[in-house]
Amino acid sequence: MAAKTKTHHEKEKAPWITCRSQIKVLDCTIRDGGLINDHKFDDALVKAVYQTCVEAGVDYMELGYKASKKQFAVGEYGDWKFCDEDALRRIVGDNPTPLKLSVMADAGKCDWREDIIPKDESVLSLIRCAFYVNQIPEAVEMIKHCHEMGYEVSANLMAISRVQDEELEEALEELAQTPTSVIVVVDSNGALYTEQIKRLVKKFRKYTDATGKEVGIHAHNNLQLAFANTIEAIIHGANRLDATMYGLGRGAGNCPMELLIGFLRNPKFHVRPIYKILQDHMLALREELEWGPLVPYMIGGQLNQHPRAAMACRESPDKDRFVAFYDKSVTEE
Amino acid sequence: MAAKTKTHHEKEKAPWITCRSQIKVLDCTIRDGGLINDHKFDDALVKAVYQTCVEAGVDYMELGYKASKKQFAVGEYGDWKFCDEDALRRIVGDNPTPLKLSVMADAGKCDWREDIIPKDESVLSLIRCAFYVNQIPEAVEMIKHCHEMGYEVSANLMAISRVQDEELEEALEELAQTPTSVIVVVDSNGALYTEQIKRLVKKFRKYTDATGKEVGIHAHNNLQLAFANTIEAIIHGANRLDATMYGLGRGAGNCPMELLIGFLRNPKFHVRPIYKILQDHMLALREELEWGPLVPYMIGGQLNQHPRAAMACRESPDKDRFVAFYDKSVTEE
Repeated sequence: MAAKTKTHHEKEKAPWITCRSQIKVLDCTIRDGGLINDHKFDDALVKAVYQTCVEAGVDYMELGYKASKKQFAVGEYGDWKFCDEDALRRIVGDNPTPLKLSVMADAGKCDWREDIIPKDESVLSLIRCAFYVNQIPEAVEMIKHCHEMGYEVSANLMAISRVQDEELEEALEELAQTPTSVIVVVDSNGALYTEQIKRLVKKFRKYTDATGKEVGIHAHNNLQLAFANTIEAIIHGANRLDATMYGLGRGAGNCPMELLIGFLRNPKFHVRPIYKILQDHMLALREELEWGPLVPYMIGGQLNQHPRAAMACRESPDKDRFVAFYDKSVTEE
Repeated sequence: MAAKTKTHHEKEKAPWITCRSQIKVLDCTIRDGGLINDHKFDDALVKAVYQTCVEAGVDYMELGYKASKKQFAVGEYGDWKFCDEDALRRIVGDNPTPLKLSVMADAGKCDWREDIIPKDESVLSLIRCAFYVNQIPEAVEMIKHCHEMGYEVSANLMAISRVQDEELEEALEELAQTPTSVIVVVDSNGALYTEQIKRLVKKFRKYTDATGKEVGIHAHNNLQLAFANTIEAIIHGANRLDATMYGLGRGAGNCPMELLIGFLRNPKFHVRPIYKILQDHMLALREELEWGPLVPYMIGGQLNQHPRAAMACRESPDKDRFVAFYDKSVTEE
């Protein structure tokens, strides 16, 4: 599905019959999923996700964060909080595959000057710099550093549903001048409806088209719209798409890879390996960890709130007291 | 959300800030859910859905089918397979509320000449005639009969994702000449993507706008698109929307009422009572009955297949053998 190009989309009778070769898919199963379990995944699962990405024709796999070891105690988290080169190579060796590897570096939580090493010493290809709109100056410096170290860079502007238009335009103007390849619409609260995605992607493209950058989309599934919003972003020209196996991810989870790959028509993508990892790994993981569009996450999405209150609710004895959670959420708004 | 009118939608900066008063919501929790359990619901649940619809400001509630007692043995099914007047009144009395009541009558499975009695003898307001594209002649007769008996009538063209354009146009031309108030896009297979919904709603409107009829949408959630497709239908002018509490419905289920009512901005709608029924009834029901966008339903949706194979899979010991189900489904295509 999805238009071959933006103009085709408007003109053709059934634009979804063709495909758009520029589209690239990034798997962030282990990275976003790590927010549920302090990044403590068995190597077997991480290897299975890696292998599945290779077989499915996914373009990038993001394994975790480059978190500051000064701020976060190494023993308290799994390896994917820090993504040291040793840990990465334990899974992927020298990565003799077409799959490119990525990590996320959060502004304010990362010693990027020391920890983002030159690309020729790393198995990584892409660094995704994540930041809130009030962190633009640090984000710009991070992006430049990562680019100078030789990586492809992505700029992930989080919590976009809480950003005012005026600030967004200023932020995009700054980011457009950096060497980032991609600017990603990140719906951290899972609060956006498709009409809003359309508007945001169009706005981002005002800044990216002229500078040869791409727009990306990272959706959360609070309103059961993560896949739909990803499609909407594609229709309006986003070419970098985030998804996760079985939708694994914090709170309501992300756009399910099985739906996204089942939708994209480029013959380089294959959905069958994804059904295999769902069967062999993800079902069992879902017994251990909870994620998905459960009612408190829906309520949080409807009210455009950070998922932390809903996550706390789901970890409490009141996890199914939806009306109490609703009443509390509305009051705090 | 959603445009106030189609023209507003294009013109305004944030059309979703207003609401469209023509939109009417139909709850089909008991009707579509009955396809899972042979319509055997406790009265307590049916009453709870009824009460919730009243409190939430829902416009219509559909309780079940008017199935032929010649074809279906009364003792083998619950009351909501037949919706006799006695059964209806056991739940709603004389229905002293603004909520209108509905049943579905399937072409080929209903003795409509005998069983659709005059409206002044019934607590029902709306009869929804459901049929496949090869049943248009009977559908037209049913619609006329129901209209003559005094009811509002809806024409529900099922399995729309399998209908060829040429046949669809002929069918719509026939239906436009009947006294039905509504023609509903019914995505029985849960196979349609938003771009296709847009196209279908626009096509339906070519026939309904000129004749003062409304377009409706009934979505299934195989691809986690039931809510998104309902929004898409609204954007393109559908004013009659089907949804169910917690998405209850055959196979992958339907558009969740809690998401739809949380989205619509008309102050007559209230989402809190819906969270209450989810908490008090639907969670427990989900322990007894299975529905939702489980992997075999996803696969069926991606392949545009009837959900019966996926339902059989989920009732078998192989219910989680996704790859085998995928391989079998692709082979049978």
